[in-house]
Amino acid sequence: MEQVAWDELLHRMGELRDFAGVVGLLTWDQETFMPAGSAGGRAAQLAAMQALVHERTIDPRLGELLAAAAAEAGLDETRAAMVRNLSRERERAVRVPAALVRDLAETQSRAVEAWRSARAGQSFATFQPHLERLVELRRAQADAIGHDSERYDALLEGHEPGMRVARLEPLFDRLEKALVPIVGALTEVRDARGWNYGDLRFPVEPQWEFTLYLLREMGFDLQRGRQDRSTHPFTDAIHVDDVRLTTRLTEENPFQAFFSTIHEGGHGLYEQNLPKDLARTPVGAAASMGLHESQSRLWENMIGRSLPFWRRHLPELRRLFPAQLEGVSAEALHAAVNRVERSPIRTDADEVTYNLHILLRFRLELAMLRGDLAVRDLPGAWNEGMRKGLGITPKNDREGVLQDIHWAWAEFGYFPTYTLGNLYAAILHRAIDRDLGGIERVVQDGRLAQVRDWLARHVHGVGHRWDAEEIVFRATGEPLDAEPFLAYVRAKYGALYGVTL
Amino acid sequence: MEQVAWDELLHRMGELRDFAGVVGLLTWDQETFMPAGSAGGRAAQLAAMQALVHERTIDPRLGELLAAAAAEAGLDETRAAMVRNLSRERERAVRVPAALVRDLAETQSRAVEAWRSARAGQSFATFQPHLERLVELRRAQADAIGHDSERYDALLEGHEPGMRVARLEPLFDRLEKALVPIVGALTEVRDARGWNYGDLRFPVEPQWEFTLYLLREMGFDLQRGRQDRSTHPFTDAIHVDDVRLTTRLTEENPFQAFFSTIHEGGHGLYEQNLPKDLARTPVGAAASMGLHESQSRLWENMIGRSLPFWRRHLPELRRLFPAQLEGVSAEALHAAVNRVERSPIRTDADEVTYNLHILLRFRLELAMLRGDLAVRDLPGAWNEGMRKGLGITPKNDREGVLQDIHWAWAEFGYFPTYTLGNLYAAILHRAIDRDLGGIERVVQDGRLAQVRDWLARHVHGVGHRWDAEEIVFRATGEPLDAEPFLAYVRAKYGALYGVTL
Repeated sequence: MEQVAWDELLHRMGELRDFAGVVGLLTWDQETFMPAGSAGGRAAQLAAMQALVHERTIDPRLGELLAAAAAEAGLDETRAAMVRNLSRERERAVRVPAALVRDLAETQSRAVEAWRSARAGQSFATFQPHLERLVELRRAQADAIGHDSERYDALLEGHEPGMRVARLEPLFDRLEKALVPIVGALTEVRDARGWNYGDLRFPVEPQWEFTLYLLREMGFDLQRGRQDRSTHPFTDAIHVDDVRLTTRLTEENPFQAFFSTIHEGGHGLYEQNLPKDLARTPVGAAASMGLHESQSRLWENMIGRSLPFWRRHLPELRRLFPAQLEGVSAEALHAAVNRVERSPIRTDADEVTYNLHILLRFRLELAMLRGDLAVRDLPGAWNEGMRKGLGITPKNDREGVLQDIHWAWAEFGYFPTYTLGNLYAAILHRAIDRDLGGIERVVQDGRLAQVRDWLARHVHGVGHRWDAEEIVFRATGEPLDAEPFLAYVRAKYGALYGVTL
Repeated sequence: MEQVAWDELLHRMGELRDFAGVVGLLTWDQETFMPAGSAGGRAAQLAAMQALVHERTIDPRLGELLAAAAAEAGLDETRAAMVRNLSRERERAVRVPAALVRDLAETQSRAVEAWRSARAGQSFATFQPHLERLVELRRAQADAIGHDSERYDALLEGHEPGMRVARLEPLFDRLEKALVPIVGALTEVRDARGWNYGDLRFPVEPQWEFTLYLLREMGFDLQRGRQDRSTHPFTDAIHVDDVRLTTRLTEENPFQAFFSTIHEGGHGLYEQNLPKDLARTPVGAAASMGLHESQSRLWENMIGRSLPFWRRHLPELRRLFPAQLEGVSAEALHAAVNRVERSPIRTDADEVTYNLHILLRFRLELAMLRGDLAVRDLPGAWNEGMRKGLGITPKNDREGVLQDIHWAWAEFGYFPTYTLGNLYAAILHRAIDRDLGGIERVVQDGRLAQVRDWLARHVHGVGHRWDAEEIVFRATGEPLDAEPFLAYVRAKYGALYGVTL
């Protein structure tokens, strides 16, 4: 392809990344500083930007340029990845009729309202027709995009490029089979473990100070990013040099803020360390939601909830909360933030039971997409799945099938990326342990920069040159598997609970 | 025109307004919360959005739709104004060649750098070639846009639609002729007047509280807007329901913050009270920069710096600063914030001398655009103008011709809108006084809502249905003239200084 055509293609790629960053700012602002009365105006602005991105993506001229570039002999790996990534995205957009996109957006919007009121009334019935319609539309969308007889794959691809149900199902089966007895063994240990801070109060100002300390320790660059407060913590990358995190502070539970900051900080490090020279191309982006989640969970759970981490950082926390932390050891704190409990609610779950919540959702949405489960039978299937997997019967649909907003957003194919994140994190954690000669010592010495640098070199800096599984394989030599995560759980919780798992 | 074409035109108008709001958010964020390291990424995002707006504006299809709408019989006044406003804007954009737009942007960018270093070195010489090129390019742009042998008109039109040099020159001549002796008489009164707060310190937290009190008193809706801090105070309307102000707090001079908040609050009220049902059309926007400035100056100077205002609000200020304000009367405070002084610097000037600074800039930029003044002769002409108008000889170019950034931005035709703002404000102030049965009593009673409502009904709510002068004429029955402003100055400062003006 001629240089002039490449220049045009790169210009179009850059513009799409610029617009994506603008959407990021509109969204971040909406959740942080936007005045309450401005919701309508902001919705119109977001819709206009999203329509613009769609228009630019399906532009036939972009299709011509991508086809010409793809046909070019001897394309280097980076340019080939640019063309592959944007072509995939473009194909998905082109294949879905505009009427279906509109129908989905409108049905989603009504479904979210219906979900809220169904949730308030603790009854699935009023949400049911909306969910039925959403499943129908997503099936139609999957058919429009195309698939090998597995509709779910077409949706999964939007969150986890390259991943397939045929790969996930056996992996998740093995994981579940191993996790159920582990959870059983851990939840049999009935003694209250560790420090009980439930009755204490923690002023939010020193909490805030500690969250910034944590970000600095992790190597999050506050000159190229910031942290604010919001109701639901999130990370929003406006640009590789402008990565914004939020956290939530309450006087009752400071660890919510601390672990949420570490979690979002993990996402933030991924975004800040993407290849800067490719920032305005489709390679200067995260490879998948699962790989993104592996970064947040590696930092939050495997590092942040480890004993050496608190041996290192407890003195700073004690300096900020001398009265509350008087006489509290790192061991007691470590036990307190690693309780394994059967909870009906996913967002309350610890890192061990969490995956069982995800597996249930994955199986149910897969069955609905396949047509094996009618939406009217969903609450029953949910409750049965909770009994089998977690030994819990939800009191009502509010703490059962209505607890998450995701299905009201018509998000099918997103939940499994949470568990993929845990699995990838464990594989990376093992490789870091090996390459740095013992991660526990590194963490206890406060050498978190070495962890960040390892991830920046082997994961973040790769951008989206390859798909997630290949990135992890090249970084570690390990294929995607449940074993490293299970080994991590057995070692950590076996020691903590004094049981053999 | 068929309904379907009108729908398309309204859609395109709405989208342009949405994108303008997005640019507003990018700009606001850049000056408030954006991380320092993100300047490059943000510049690319802003450039992409501006290129998009330009592309959409010059789109031939928009031209067709506007032409068809303009040809429609019996178009109602609002739709006619929409078509007029957007057609004017589109014509200006279409007529200027893309190469000239690019050349201007690049030259501006280099000129700003050159201006900064020239200013630091206190010497005009290094800035001169850049300014020469900018004048040349603006002349070419004015010729491309078209004019009746007065190039300046083509530039003025971009800030003050409908205004012409032929109208401004005699108006400004009369104003100057009257102001020079008034300034002379006032600056002859040599006694230090009023309260001297120069050695006191004012903590910023209660200042912030007082600025929010002022905004509430003015009726600025903090559910549909917000205030933040920034180095240079500004107002940014992201949407009619999302109007953002900034102020600047220093311990040395709390009145800088107070009057800056009132000033931006005046701009903010204009934006919040534009016709909401027309928000996504070219009528739901301010009519001109001069009319905008009339709102900020009316609130800041004519209301905020009036004696009844401080009689009303001094108790609240004293509650926040009891030690600093002990024994200070409203009269002493009023005198302190209304000192008339000859200063070389425009931004330090009071409301009386301010206009003389503007008139000098207007005459010089007009002469450069006409080709009557060579750029190399500008510093000399500046210093001579300062001597004649204000009786001051600048010590160097830094406090002379290099003090403002505007010319480095190639902003010609913008300065006169500041003085137009003062003139419009005085006309509106007089009408409000008449319609509300005495504005002094209204202000002293704290009934600022009545002032806001008058402005919302007669000025803000009109949107850009008519141009500024017509809006003011319909609101007040008065044509644009210098007399109301001069009468206001004579009355206020004559009383305050005890002289006959």
